[in-house]
Parts: sequence; C-alpha cells; structure tokens
Amino acid sequence: MNQKLTHLQNYMNSESIDVVYLDNPNTVAYFTNFESNPHERIVAYIVTQKDHFLFVPALEKEEAKSQSNVENIYTYNDEEDPWKIIAEETSKLVKKINYFCIDEGTLTVERYNKLNQAFLETQKQDHTIASNDIGSIIDQMRVVKTQDEIDKMIVAGKLADEALQIGIDSLVEGITEQEIVAIIDMEMKKRGVSEMSFSTLVLFGDHAANPHGNPGDRKLKQNEFVLFDLGVIYNGYASDVTRTIAFGEVSEKEVEVYEIVKEAQRTAQEAVKPGMRAGELDQIARKVIEDAGYGKYFNHRLGHGIGKTAHEFPSIHGSNETILEPGMCFSIEPGIYIPGEVGVRVEDCVYVTEEGCEPFTFMDKELYTVIR
Amino acid sequence: MNQKLTHLQNYMNSESIDVVYLDNPNTVAYFTNFESNPHERIVAYIVTQKDHFLFVPALEKEEAKSQSNVENIYTYNDEEDPWKIIAEETSKLVKKINYFCIDEGTLTVERYNKLNQAFLETQKQDHTIASNDIGSIIDQMRVVKTQDEIDKMIVAGKLADEALQIGIDSLVEGITEQEIVAIIDMEMKKRGVSEMSFSTLVLFGDHAANPHGNPGDRKLKQNEFVLFDLGVIYNGYASDVTRTIAFGEVSEKEVEVYEIVKEAQRTAQEAVKPGMRAGELDQIARKVIEDAGYGKYFNHRLGHGIGKTAHEFPSIHGSNETILEPGMCFSIEPGIYIPGEVGVRVEDCVYVTEEGCEPFTFMDKELYTVIR
Repeated sequence: MNQKLTHLQNYMNSESIDVVYLDNPNTVAYFTNFESNPHERIVAYIVTQKDHFLFVPALEKEEAKSQSNVENIYTYNDEEDPWKIIAEETSKLVKKINYFCIDEGTLTVERYNKLNQAFLETQKQDHTIASNDIGSIIDQMRVVKTQDEIDKMIVAGKLADEALQIGIDSLVEGITEQEIVAIIDMEMKKRGVSEMSFSTLVLFGDHAANPHGNPGDRKLKQNEFVLFDLGVIYNGYASDVTRTIAFGEVSEKEVEVYEIVKEAQRTAQEAVKPGMRAGELDQIARKVIEDAGYGKYFNHRLGHGIGKTAHEFPSIHGSNETILEPGMCFSIEPGIYIPGEVGVRVEDCVYVTEEGCEPFTFMDKELYTVIR
Repeated sequence: MNQKLTHLQNYMNSESIDVVYLDNPNTVAYFTNFESNPHERIVAYIVTQKDHFLFVPALEKEEAKSQSNVENIYTYNDEEDPWKIIAEETSKLVKKINYFCIDEGTLTVERYNKLNQAFLETQKQDHTIASNDIGSIIDQMRVVKTQDEIDKMIVAGKLADEALQIGIDSLVEGITEQEIVAIIDMEMKKRGVSEMSFSTLVLFGDHAANPHGNPGDRKLKQNEFVLFDLGVIYNGYASDVTRTIAFGEVSEKEVEVYEIVKEAQRTAQEAVKPGMRAGELDQIARKVIEDAGYGKYFNHRLGHGIGKTAHEFPSIHGSNETILEPGMCFSIEPGIYIPGEVGVRVEDCVYVTEEGCEPFTFMDKELYTVIR
C-alpha cells in the first residue's frame, strides 16, 4: 500500500478536493520515487480522489517507468501542448472538476494560469473552478520523516562527516578556499555522490565573519579559523554539517567565541524533546550567546528543516509555534559573526526521537586544532 | 549610467507600469550585479519609473552592498514579514500603485499572492491593482548583450579553452571519462571557477554517438574519438565549447564525418550577419550535412542562446524568425551521431557584431590528434 498517496487522498476526500496537481521535482519524487530534473519541461504528478498518474516528457518515459511506483504514465513531446493533455487525462477521471489544489509555494504564476485555462477549456462546462494551496499540507506530511527516509539521511550524514575530514586533512598553508572545495567535491564524486546539498562552503579567518561569504582565492595563513559548511545528496536525501576549526594557534578571543558557539549548539541539541515548540530551541541557543554578550552577532535563525533538500520545514526560529514530533529533522547551527574579525558556526542536523534527538553527523565539537 | 535600468524604466513609462517586482536570482544579478542563491529567502529587485531598490535578507546586506550597483538596499530578518517591508518601501516611491508587473515564468503563485495582498493592505486605498507579466520583455532585453557582458563572456570563453586543453593533456590509455571530468573541474576550481555552466561532458568513442550520454567509467582505448563539451560560469556569465579530437589514429570514415561537421560549423559561423533570421543559420549548417548524406544523423537544433546561463534566447532552430542583432550571443554546434558507431560535434559560441560575428573560444578546429 502506498501510505503517502492514501494520506493525501483521504485529505482530498475530507476537503472535497477533486484534483491535486504537483510538479515540484522533489514532491513528485516523494510520492512516486521518480527523481527528475526536467528544467523547463514538465514532470507532474496528478492525483484524484481515487486515481493518480504521472505526466512526463516522452524522452523520460522509460526512466519514469523503471523508477516510479505509478502505473499510468502519460507523455508529451516538444510539439504538443502539455496542459491540454493533462487536462484531458484528468477529465477522464473526474467528469466535473469543481475544486483543484496546487502547491502555491513552487508552482509559477505562468503554469498556474495555463493549467487553469486548460481545465476550463477541456471541461467545456459552464461552471467556475476554484483552486487553493495544498503545499502546506504536503509540507506537513513531509515534515515527519519515515524510518526509510531517516535511514537514507543517516548515510548522507556519514558522507558529510567524511567530507569534513577530507577538508581538514587537505589544509596546508597557502592553499585557497576554492582548492579545498574542489578536493572535497571531487572526493565525494569518487564515492558516488553526484550532487552536494548546496555549494560547499570553505572560509578562512575573518572571511568567515560574513555568514554568506563565498569561497575565493584567499590563501590559508597560519593561526586562523577555517569554517566548513557542507552536505551531500545521497539516494535523494540531504545532509548538512558545519565545523569551525583552528589552523595553528588562534587568539584567546577567537577561542572564547568558539566556546560560546559550541556551548549554544550543545545546549540546544540536548534540549530537543518531542512536545516542545520549535521556537523554544532558538531561544535556548540564543540565550547562551546573549548571556555571553554576543547576542547582536548571532543574526540568523537557529536552524532549518532538512530532508529531500537542505531547506525544508520546520524552520527553527524564535517565533515558530510548531510542536516538535518524533521524525522531524532539522539543523541546529548557532553562529557568532564579528565583521572583519571572526566568524564561527557549529552545526549538526538531528532527527527527533521519542526521548530527545539523534544527530546525523558525529564529528567531535571540541575545538579541533591542526598544526601543520 | 545604468543602461539596463533605463531601458526597463522607459518601457515601464510607455506602458504605464508603476512597479516591477523581480526575484529570479539571474534576473536580479542581470540588473544589479548582485549574484545570490537565496533558497526560500527573498532577494528581490524592485523598480519604479523613477527609482529602484534591492531587498535582501539582513545577513546578505554586506555582500549586496559590495557587489551591487544599487544604492538603496532594504533588508529583513527571519522574524519580519518581507512583503510588508517591500510594499511599504515601494509605497514611499509610488503613492498610488495601479499596475505592477512580475516575471510569471519564475514567480510562484504564493509569492504573487503575498505581494499582491501586501500592496493592497499597505496602500489602504479603495482601488484595484492590476498585474501582468514582464518576463518576456526581460528575456528580450537579455538577448542583446552589453559590451560589459560580452567582456565577461570573453573571459569565460578563455577559461573554457583552457579547460579543453587540460582535458586533452590528461588523456592517456585506460583513464575513464569520469576521471577526465574530475581533473577538468578541479583545475577550473583552482583558477577561481566556482561553477561550471553545466555538467562537464567527456565521452569516448561510440559513447559520443548518444547526444545525451553521461560520462561513466568507460576506459579510453587507442584510436578512438574523444568528445569534450564544457563551459564555465565566470563573473556570472557562461561559456560553452565542444571539440571532438582523435586519440591515436581514427578510421577514414571517422575522419570523413569529422570533416563534414567541421565544415558545417565553419560555414554557419562565417554566415552570421546582423539582419538575417536565426533559423537561416540552422538551415545553412544542416544543408552541408544533408548534402554529404548524413542529414538524418544531425538530430538537434544548431544552437542555443548563452549569457548568464548556457540556455537562453535566441534558440537557433530552423523555424526561429528572430532577426539577429549585434550583441546577440549563441552557440553554433552541428553534430553527426551514428548510433553505436561514432559521434562528432564541434561548437563555438559567438557574439554578433556589426559585420558578422566573433567567437568566444578559439581552439583550432582542424582535427586534433593526440599520439600518446
């Protein structure tokens, strides 16, 4: 039985939703197991209360058939109007579409207009068709991971730990941030990782004080921090980890900043419990940093959800009232960034358990010093 | 003077558009020089008939300030409502918003609804606000590159030429396609390239006969072709080049196929003139291959536009009626693919000049043979 589909169709039934149209590649893969990267072409999953089908470009049909759990797969080629075909196939399943839902957070205005227009024209009935968002319902479904999903994320986490170690082992005076990134990414490719969760971040010294700085040709000097923020996609699931380590001997103040960030991260991670508000976690970590007098230098939320991508729900920011449940997965990543001076961030992603949480990454968080 | 902004504002003026809202990262970078990767956060560029501002997450402010050409940068942090801030700042510039435009091809339904709602609430006036698409106008603007853009693409082209040479220099019996890809990508990273235009393609022998094949663990043998198709993103602009070279001595038929493709490429490149139809170029190259009896093995369009990405307008296919203008940039890449036997493609990207065109890549097109 397809649990995810049943869950969605039960909801559609309870809300009298005739059709759900989904074309975000991650969402399509979540329901059908078909991973795709259609660019401007359309890969869509259409669900009615009693049926469902996949819609793919003709040249992806074989791939969709072998990967997916969906029996009915319809296709189009570049000369056909995809919207007409979707509307026609859907109308065979639902004679009168009164109400359909889309994922407003990912569907473009252009596609929405075309879909809506095709439904109106194909149905040729004198009725209006209402539409609404189903993205938040799907996000809710996706926010609690199944054991199978968590198992995949554990593997992605192990690879991230390996990637960190590869980065650390490659540090040598004079090497550039970009070169370290290249080494990490290449070694991951050799291990079968075809995609990183996001562009691998390696920042030296004060460069790390910009929380969204990009790796460049800055050369590594003795006695400065190195910040790594990276993750891999493996089997369709993401990992994400950050460590800041010392290359040589860093100053007392840098050590102090590091210890505060580490303490904030550890305190929040230990505080995770099902039943608590997500926002509380942010407050717990923030308090550690504020009490140490660095509050204004921690200028982002504590964390983000993670799953098929490195940016999902739940968001771990101070005012998020979401109640944590077992199976939720997110990052805990406090940081202190003093412009032009120092930047430190420490991050593990975790999944909530019945008792607390377990991390996906395990590299030790005591200040790691490389003397070379 | 900011040519692009002036062009857009002139259009807005002529169409009585009060506000343009843009948040596609490539489009924002096109207008402002600020390259970003905001994920679910918002980086937006808002233009009124007389003014403009950037809107970015608080933690990206420094980066935006140093990269962009925009004076007014407003920010939000994760606890604030970005739409309210955008609507308020916009309303300071336009008292009464009657008509605004968005890029319907990239803006999500959710963001559109929120923006629209925020305008309505902030303006607190009893009037409706109309909206429409401006995406096609911006695509039209982007199709003709400025000198500054072409200068950046020339640098990206030089790097692509270097990447080709690195790939050729790495060829040795027994090495795999994937290994050559890894070497090229790493060497490019060392030169400051943080992103390739697309996944680097290296295909050996008959493997190149599949125009959408992927590099694998196939090992290089003596006396076969090697096809390289690659490009880099540099300073936000892409390059793209293809060469097919001989490793050892290839057969007479392979040489024949190569010469036909080279001739088709050369003929089309020499035929480029402002004022001609884009489709004519495809026909010119295709005729060379058809006359040689290989027409059915050239099964894709001649080329694609290039700029901030490797797939832009104009498309160089037979029925494209677009008239070529100085500043347009596109690839010229005929190929012959005989399944299971041989695949050859030769590609340079060019920019149209007053007299003809100039290429971005310069590696010689005579059959290059590596004896090793």
